[in-house]
Amino acid sequence: MDFSSFLTSLGTSFAIFVVLMFLFAWLSRRPGNAVVYYPNRILKGLDPVDGGSAPRNPFTWIREALSSSEQDVINMSGVDTAVYFVFLSTVLGILAFSGLVLLPVLLPVAVTDHGANSNSNSQTTSNGTFGDLDKLSMGNIAEKSPRLWAFLVATYWVSFITYYLLWKAYKHVAALRADALMSPEVRPEQFAVLVRDVPKATEGQSRKEQVDSYFNAIYPETFYRSLIVTDNKKVNKIWQELEGYKKKLERAEVIYAESKKKGNAEGIRPTNRTGLLGLFGKKVDSIEYYKEKINEIIPKLESEQKVTVREKQQCAAIVFFTSRVTAACAGQSLYAQMVDHWTVIDAPEPRQLIWTNLTINFFQRQIRQCVVYAIVFLVIVFYIIPITFISGITTLANLEKLLPFLKPIVKIDVLRTVLEAYLPQLALIIFMALLPKFLLFLSKTEGIPSGSHAIRAASGKYFYFVVVNVFIGVTIGATVFDTIKTIEKDPNSVVTLLAQSLPNNATFFITYVALQFFVGYGLELSRIVPLIIFHLKKKYLCKTEADIKEAWLPGDIGYGTRVPGDMLVVTIVLCYSVIAPIIIPFGVLYFGLGWLILRNQALKVYVPSYESYGRMWPHIHTRLLAALLLYQVTMFGYIGAKKFVYAPIIVPLVILSLIFAFVCRKKFYPAFCHPPLEVACHELKEIPNMEQIFRSYIPPSLCSEKLEDNQHEDALSRASRSVSVV
Amino acid sequence: MDFSSFLTSLGTSFAIFVVLMFLFAWLSRRPGNAVVYYPNRILKGLDPVDGGSAPRNPFTWIREALSSSEQDVINMSGVDTAVYFVFLSTVLGILAFSGLVLLPVLLPVAVTDHGANSNSNSQTTSNGTFGDLDKLSMGNIAEKSPRLWAFLVATYWVSFITYYLLWKAYKHVAALRADALMSPEVRPEQFAVLVRDVPKATEGQSRKEQVDSYFNAIYPETFYRSLIVTDNKKVNKIWQELEGYKKKLERAEVIYAESKKKGNAEGIRPTNRTGLLGLFGKKVDSIEYYKEKINEIIPKLESEQKVTVREKQQCAAIVFFTSRVTAACAGQSLYAQMVDHWTVIDAPEPRQLIWTNLTINFFQRQIRQCVVYAIVFLVIVFYIIPITFISGITTLANLEKLLPFLKPIVKIDVLRTVLEAYLPQLALIIFMALLPKFLLFLSKTEGIPSGSHAIRAASGKYFYFVVVNVFIGVTIGATVFDTIKTIEKDPNSVVTLLAQSLPNNATFFITYVALQFFVGYGLELSRIVPLIIFHLKKKYLCKTEADIKEAWLPGDIGYGTRVPGDMLVVTIVLCYSVIAPIIIPFGVLYFGLGWLILRNQALKVYVPSYESYGRMWPHIHTRLLAALLLYQVTMFGYIGAKKFVYAPIIVPLVILSLIFAFVCRKKFYPAFCHPPLEVACHELKEIPNMEQIFRSYIPPSLCSEKLEDNQHEDALSRASRSVSVV
Repeated sequence: MDFSSFLTSLGTSFAIFVVLMFLFAWLSRRPGNAVVYYPNRILKGLDPVDGGSAPRNPFTWIREALSSSEQDVINMSGVDTAVYFVFLSTVLGILAFSGLVLLPVLLPVAVTDHGANSNSNSQTTSNGTFGDLDKLSMGNIAEKSPRLWAFLVATYWVSFITYYLLWKAYKHVAALRADALMSPEVRPEQFAVLVRDVPKATEGQSRKEQVDSYFNAIYPETFYRSLIVTDNKKVNKIWQELEGYKKKLERAEVIYAESKKKGNAEGIRPTNRTGLLGLFGKKVDSIEYYKEKINEIIPKLESEQKVTVREKQQCAAIVFFTSRVTAACAGQSLYAQMVDHWTVIDAPEPRQLIWTNLTINFFQRQIRQCVVYAIVFLVIVFYIIPITFISGITTLANLEKLLPFLKPIVKIDVLRTVLEAYLPQLALIIFMALLPKFLLFLSKTEGIPSGSHAIRAASGKYFYFVVVNVFIGVTIGATVFDTIKTIEKDPNSVVTLLAQSLPNNATFFITYVALQFFVGYGLELSRIVPLIIFHLKKKYLCKTEADIKEAWLPGDIGYGTRVPGDMLVVTIVLCYSVIAPIIIPFGVLYFGLGWLILRNQALKVYVPSYESYGRMWPHIHTRLLAALLLYQVTMFGYIGAKKFVYAPIIVPLVILSLIFAFVCRKKFYPAFCHPPLEVACHELKEIPNMEQIFRSYIPPSLCSEKLEDNQHEDALSRASRSVSVV
Repeated sequence: MDFSSFLTSLGTSFAIFVVLMFLFAWLSRRPGNAVVYYPNRILKGLDPVDGGSAPRNPFTWIREALSSSEQDVINMSGVDTAVYFVFLSTVLGILAFSGLVLLPVLLPVAVTDHGANSNSNSQTTSNGTFGDLDKLSMGNIAEKSPRLWAFLVATYWVSFITYYLLWKAYKHVAALRADALMSPEVRPEQFAVLVRDVPKATEGQSRKEQVDSYFNAIYPETFYRSLIVTDNKKVNKIWQELEGYKKKLERAEVIYAESKKKGNAEGIRPTNRTGLLGLFGKKVDSIEYYKEKINEIIPKLESEQKVTVREKQQCAAIVFFTSRVTAACAGQSLYAQMVDHWTVIDAPEPRQLIWTNLTINFFQRQIRQCVVYAIVFLVIVFYIIPITFISGITTLANLEKLLPFLKPIVKIDVLRTVLEAYLPQLALIIFMALLPKFLLFLSKTEGIPSGSHAIRAASGKYFYFVVVNVFIGVTIGATVFDTIKTIEKDPNSVVTLLAQSLPNNATFFITYVALQFFVGYGLELSRIVPLIIFHLKKKYLCKTEADIKEAWLPGDIGYGTRVPGDMLVVTIVLCYSVIAPIIIPFGVLYFGLGWLILRNQALKVYVPSYESYGRMWPHIHTRLLAALLLYQVTMFGYIGAKKFVYAPIIVPLVILSLIFAFVCRKKFYPAFCHPPLEVACHELKEIPNMEQIFRSYIPPSLCSEKLEDNQHEDALSRASRSVSVV
């Protein structure tokens, strides 16, 4: 890629960004769009616009985002989101401090050296990628030059900045988490533990009795009651049917009411057919038909609910305690002599529970985990083949060769430049978009009981995938396609190859980062896609208020895929920070813009779908350190490839990183695994309403309004009388 | 070593054993020796000999040992000893079952093959070690012979026997431990936790108040009180001085009383000098002088005790709970947000506490551990050099060359044979005897708070040392000394070398094992050395009853060094079991004889010095599996060295071992780390006397009779008034 196509790429990205910004400014001021641009505020019962009467210019949102405090974020979007901003600002800090020193020092050092140019280095000039930009990079330094000292010291500088800021961030996040956990609010999950692998009950004893007597013996004073996990497959089906008919009835009523308003006073009663897809069968009056159906199903549901609670008890339970300390303590202790029985962990939030995973037994979980890891490993290792192929093939020169009919298009100059700039990145981005759902599915298959945990696990897998495949894959791949013969000669040279091919790919990654932040964040802020979808749905599909609300409901901020994406950018920028310092400003822009725009989105748009009190952080921390390690190893390889004899001075840095990781893990991590008791023992605002806590865990299909409050107790007493052991 | 010197070695060992047995039979029947041969029974207040009047023949002890049940062992010597017997019988089982199949199958297969002899294999014949015995080993099988299938299958057989018996043993030990922990007896350590890393107290608050208020907040109902660890250096010194004078006073009184009996009715009052070593200075009346000294010291001790309790409080404490479940729960929970504060673990027994280690802070412990591991690693790696040298040098041929003046001695035939047989083994045994104390010292330096844990840690280090140095060192070493040039040519051939040199060393190890069990267990049973020491002490040193008791007090069974020694034998026998099956009977004899003799010693002699409820077992289990792994890898190497193409069939076995280790660890290990709550929640026999439990943890130097019972409470109230913060 030469310099002009690089500039074109930047230019178009920026142009798209500016257009999207203006679109946002214009669209967000129209009141009809408020539900798309301020849903979080609306759901919280706030005015869409703060102090609606004040004059708002298109940049008010920037002022608002900048002036918002961490506490605002926690109030509007929870601790998890606040932790995400800690991540963004930490990375921003690392890159900014690095840039402050690296840019004014390393750029002049690189640009004034003519070593690499003069000695006709075949590797850097032959493949035509050695553009003007590369003069600013370390590739321009002659081998064995004493100037390499500057780059070596810079590596140390970046590392120490990273240690310092990561340490501060971990401390800060730990404090945030502790504050949230010791809050005087009553939170159901702090009074419960999740019990799995309940062993077979003795003859004549129901699961419920078994669990109750077990925990009563251990916690005679603080045990409240237990909720046995049941096999809800059938009851869920009936309940969904019921909910479906309820919705249809509501719609039919709205249509009837509207027809009254429009046409004749009588109105037209809506009708439908009872057969397949509503297209065949007898034509009936919808309202009557649905009402009838609902009346039919309700008793069916009720009897099924009773059967489920009484007879479909499974080997898992949620146990409630009247004290927060006991619950915290209970989640950390060992219960059974054999570990594959009575596994107890802290209960996740009710909305996070993955019910079907709760009943998977201990050894099956272990085996599933192994199998999933093996699959992920295979995916990571073997996806490198297609992706290497793609990044090699999607240069225009190659495309022309492979697809000759493209030639007339490619001949148009402007198009050519644009295509040349975007093709490889676009291929990459589309490719990457297909993966997260697959990984989330895999993580859920492992048997993880809580949603946030599954998302963390998927996110971790995604990170390794992204780094291995995109970063290492593209870096090596681009070179491999040209120098396939070098590899054949000496297959051991992969590490050297990685190091040597780095500077050539700097411009590729700069455009990648720029595309990500200009186009990605532009789309994010302007919410063009959700806006269009909302308006389309509203016009053609939505009948009732509930339908409309469903159409604009924004979902959560999407940690699972956002973090690995950001991590990829961190990895790229870190690894190139010393080799091609010109990438740093782009990294700073990415995280600065990201912070600003997501702050706006977190405050006004996204609604968190769970709260894990910052448990994502240790995960992010580890991966940031992994990126740092990759950076240090790369620098060692690259400085070594320059035949600089002092390259081993970087080795202590690698060891230091490992020690830092170890110390952080020892010091901070346990508090993220379990709630520390000194935190849990803080006073509560009020005496917890245990009944309410208990009810919050009953799955919706089991808590019908018609059933009495004490249905579970009722079921318990009856189940204890029934002899059949489930 | 040729066949005749092998037989001589066996013969002498056996002769020594027989002599020692007769000595035991004769000596143990003399009543004056009862305190040496039955101290455990005497201390437990039982008759030395069961049913003393019944006729006892020299072999009664064998019947008694065989008929004793596991419960007898637990009653007389604790769970730890019972677990040691589980270890012995498991290994015995493994070897016996292996031998049952391997001996009748593999010996004929090996002996009828003439492959290796005919093809003039230089490696096995040139160095002259290929004796008659080696015909029975795998070395006699020709390369690529299909007979190797038998050895491959045998490897599988031994492995599966091991898995099966280890699984059964782990289950059994876990049950033993659970039974002991759920016993209705009140045991102080089950009501206490050890708290370390107490952070700095706020101004105006004593440690005691700080700890009390902290735990009171978390466990308002079950917290009893706390015992702050104090700096006892000074008070200990005074207390020891006092105890020393008390002992001397007692002795002086006995001497005076005896002199009255013997000579004149007045008696001679003993005198001593007050100066250095009692040799210089003024001559005084001993009884008067010591009484005076004691009266002088007692008030000093009392005031120092008060000062210590009040002002020398350290950053560690023992916290007591009124409920066993809470204490078990408390030892498993996380307390502080930052892990380097408020580290809480289950309290060890009072007699096991290493007081000086309690106050070492968290990060220092981590660092100490790393340093100790590094030292152990260096010791293991670099001791291999002297030991290789020793085992190479201590063959007679080499000694003759190096020390020509030995020639006349060596010429005597009998002496020569004996020396040839024993020299290398003796060198080895003496060498090994110096190490355990050093390793125990290192383990204590790590900052481990309990004695049994330190012994476990030392024992683990010793095992790796022993296996790496003795087994691998000797095996390779003996070959290296002859084939030093082979190594120089190709330093990568160490693994092949290990495998090839194995059969040559089989006879060496057979004699080693035989020496161990005949001479070692002979000495163990006959207790010649303790007997002589006791009689000497009694005659020349002991004056009072207490002195005499001290002279025969037997100490404990010595897990720390016994287990690694046994493990070495297991490793050797396992590794050679298929290569030279003739070693198996020796292994069976070692463990059979060991079981029998130690059963006698456990029931009658040794007094356990601590009880850890079988926590040694996971440790033994892991090391048995390590031995199995070494065996499997060796077999892979050895069968591979025979150029057998199916050798890789052993690889799944190695993976299976790793999976087995993983499963065992997951399933059984946690219950050995922490007491499971379902075990701790069992009913107690009586309401625990908390005051007594508390007092059992007060170090002897702080619990003087003169101080009132409530001294600690007293100190607490006073300390809370004093402003100085310790």
